[in-house]
Amino acid sequence: MTISPKVVETTTLLGLVAGSLTTISFIPQVMKTWKYKETKDISFLMYVIFFTGVLLWFLYGLIIKNTPVIVANGVSLILVFIVLVLKIRYG
Amino acid sequence: MTISPKVVETTTLLGLVAGSLTTISFIPQVMKTWKYKETKDISFLMYVIFFTGVLLWFLYGLIIKNTPVIVANGVSLILVFIVLVLKIRYG
Repeated sequence: MTISPKVVETTTLLGLVAGSLTTISFIPQVMKTWKYKETKDISFLMYVIFFTGVLLWFLYGLIIKNTPVIVANGVSLILVFIVLVLKIRYG
Repeated sequence: MTISPKVVETTTLLGLVAGSLTTISFIPQVMKTWKYKETKDISFLMYVIFFTGVLLWFLYGLIIKNTPVIVANGVSLILVFIVLVLKIRYG
């Protein structure tokens, strides 16, 4: 089956929207935690493992020279790091 | 520059480890929330946006027929959905 360039374009767009959403999703968590300074219900282990995973994704992006992977994970890295620092600070 | 098969293999492994970590990271959050039934400090908006993003990643994986993308995001989808349901339930 031949896939038309139109379908490829739509698929790439879908991937870009997906990546943007999973990245920006951490903004409301950063804002909420920044405002209320409460992190009791947030799992520390989740953020440690997630941060490590995103860091590896970022390195993976650098190695395969894939800009969307680098940008999405670079931004996520910063946001997730902020939540992690706030979690360590507020317990 | 020629990249040896060994380097390609290591890079793929890096991507797989990265994907596994970001996926399994939600397990401790599910366990913590399941146990303590407290979700006040967790951002509802974060989980709604993250869930939507992972759902699109999953669809993207199905379209490009990429098994690691399908599996990683399929598992994430379930874990993130559980946190979201618990957040709706416990507020």
